[in-house]
Amino acid sequence: METLLLISQEEVSQRISKIQQGLFVQNIGAALICDNANIYYCSGRVFNGYVYIPSEGDALYFVRRPVELTGERVIYIRKPEDIPALLAEQGYALPETIGLELDLIPYSVAQRLVSLFANAKMNNVSAVMRQARSIKTAYEIEQLRQSGIKHEYVYSNVPSLYHDGMTDMELQVEIERALRLAGCIGKFRISGNSMEIHMGNLICGDNADSPSPYDFAMGGAGVDPSLPVGSDGTMIIPGMTVMVDMNGNFTGYMTDMTRTFSVGKVNDLAQKAHNCSIEICHQLADMAKPGVEAKALYNRAIEIVTDAGFEDYFMGHRQKAGFIGHGVGIEVNESPVIAPRSRDVLCEGNVIALEPKFVIPGVGAVGIENTYVVKLEGMECITKATEEIIALD
Amino acid sequence: METLLLISQEEVSQRISKIQQGLFVQNIGAALICDNANIYYCSGRVFNGYVYIPSEGDALYFVRRPVELTGERVIYIRKPEDIPALLAEQGYALPETIGLELDLIPYSVAQRLVSLFANAKMNNVSAVMRQARSIKTAYEIEQLRQSGIKHEYVYSNVPSLYHDGMTDMELQVEIERALRLAGCIGKFRISGNSMEIHMGNLICGDNADSPSPYDFAMGGAGVDPSLPVGSDGTMIIPGMTVMVDMNGNFTGYMTDMTRTFSVGKVNDLAQKAHNCSIEICHQLADMAKPGVEAKALYNRAIEIVTDAGFEDYFMGHRQKAGFIGHGVGIEVNESPVIAPRSRDVLCEGNVIALEPKFVIPGVGAVGIENTYVVKLEGMECITKATEEIIALD
Repeated sequence: METLLLISQEEVSQRISKIQQGLFVQNIGAALICDNANIYYCSGRVFNGYVYIPSEGDALYFVRRPVELTGERVIYIRKPEDIPALLAEQGYALPETIGLELDLIPYSVAQRLVSLFANAKMNNVSAVMRQARSIKTAYEIEQLRQSGIKHEYVYSNVPSLYHDGMTDMELQVEIERALRLAGCIGKFRISGNSMEIHMGNLICGDNADSPSPYDFAMGGAGVDPSLPVGSDGTMIIPGMTVMVDMNGNFTGYMTDMTRTFSVGKVNDLAQKAHNCSIEICHQLADMAKPGVEAKALYNRAIEIVTDAGFEDYFMGHRQKAGFIGHGVGIEVNESPVIAPRSRDVLCEGNVIALEPKFVIPGVGAVGIENTYVVKLEGMECITKATEEIIALD
Repeated sequence: METLLLISQEEVSQRISKIQQGLFVQNIGAALICDNANIYYCSGRVFNGYVYIPSEGDALYFVRRPVELTGERVIYIRKPEDIPALLAEQGYALPETIGLELDLIPYSVAQRLVSLFANAKMNNVSAVMRQARSIKTAYEIEQLRQSGIKHEYVYSNVPSLYHDGMTDMELQVEIERALRLAGCIGKFRISGNSMEIHMGNLICGDNADSPSPYDFAMGGAGVDPSLPVGSDGTMIIPGMTVMVDMNGNFTGYMTDMTRTFSVGKVNDLAQKAHNCSIEICHQLADMAKPGVEAKALYNRAIEIVTDAGFEDYFMGHRQKAGFIGHGVGIEVNESPVIAPRSRDVLCEGNVIALEPKFVIPGVGAVGIENTYVVKLEGMECITKATEEIIALD
């Protein structure tokens, strides 16, 4: 018999009370959570079921599968319609307003769940959950640091995986294997349905300029129109860059790190743009601290790029991304968002990835991405691989 | 400049007219489609945007990303709110009932989309899309056959990937690499948010009996509670089975195939249960044809299992799956469902996976899974690897 909670009660309490603060502010009586990433956040494991979080008091865990989990406030159900009677049994009054993850759960699921709560009004707790999850606990930050160490270890071995005459896809597959053997969980967790990727992105040469349907910073054509992103079979030849932005999910918490590799020398423009990316990361890391506006980071990056005269290549060329960074944790697209119209303000405990990248026609993508913890005294970089362009050969 | 449609106009017309038949039956004026798998179905590529399908007339493709796609009826938009005016420009009257994918798209997305259509009623087209996609075209069946050939090729090489002293995870990673090098796209496409897996399932020994939160036929503990399914680091030793049920997505259309491997001999019970699985597949393949009820297949499987006295082990042991087969195509969980209360009736052009499996304590999972095309004259198996238990050593 296994316990449901795989994080300490103290850790659970910290997380639940952050959510409860959000419920209180929005005047929501209780939240009923069923998105896998949010379930994992509330319990330390993915299960099939619901977490019921009243605005005050203890959370209840309603479980459908797996069988045989134990713990206080773990209650097995066959279907969500069982929940109201079980709440009453536990002495919980039905809420007047029920919070659901309306940005995540399908319309028909939301309709079914709200109908459990008689005349309750429905409210959206997606932002409450995003906000709670954006402020990482010490334990979560430690998970991210552990991912960063393994992520860096695999990146340091990338040159040993390369051989002459390889395609981008062949190199990607060897990096995938190295990541997995180092403990990468494989799943690249992204909130929502619209973005899809397999183990991250490796883009080489002019494939960096192939526009993608997804809201990633970089594109790539992919090898199949059912997943049009990343490696497309380009042969890696001297003078091209290979940008590696692959899966750092070793602990359930993912670091996001990009490094640029090359065979032989890249041209002067590409080298300068790469240096500019490093400069942006360093300057933003110096200026970022609690209280700084996310859009101020974005604007500073644009200033540096404009001063250098590299606007045409920044964040894509034929198609441009509208952000230079994002929160990261259980998923790769968390809050805050580092974008021109972001209303986010940095807080202690945010973990953000900064990815000022350039696409240089005839060469490929250049630049770096690091994951940082926002601390009172400034930012801690937790993705420590060499930042220079790294020789594959 | 690339064309948006990556399938022939005739192929598009076949698919759209199947959807339009569904719209007509449900009296829905038009559907607005935005789920990636359905977008891919309607165009042959994943793009960010919407397919507008009137109940009569031509579909329109409203695209946000990627940039620069061309084609008749390809219309770029910045946001969905642009759609109504563009429909009017194209001479399309606004529908009185708008069909949305309410089983798939988030509540807040559905609210936003329905608001585009003034006083239109909203209806759910999820079942219409599932039904259309469950009847594969000749072209789609050919994509599935191609996946089946590559899938079988990789499975035939599994023994060469094994060495003494391997864990289940180590073997899984080598199979992942072999699949990818053979052209597997990587993404294991599953409809909905609740089921998650990375490149499929490999389960060894008693890990087969670890219950999972997901609605897959087999479980496994996994290596991390953020993705609790599959390999858990079990050392592969003589007498254990290794069940391989990994990603057959080579063409955007996935075959589903399971084979059982072992080191040394398995015990008598496991061998007999494995033979029973083969027997079930063969008997069901003989009885399945258009007009046969899906639940009749399920019931026949249960009869065979009960006659053999293997009920305790069938479709899991500590936790049991409630189905023995399912439709497969762009996603792994399509219609029809082969389950006791299924109301599905087999149709020509259905493609189904049958996976009668057993979990034998002390040994592991045994059995096979094949993907079949339902034809007028009976079923065609498109996953042709040897069905016997295959020696790894």
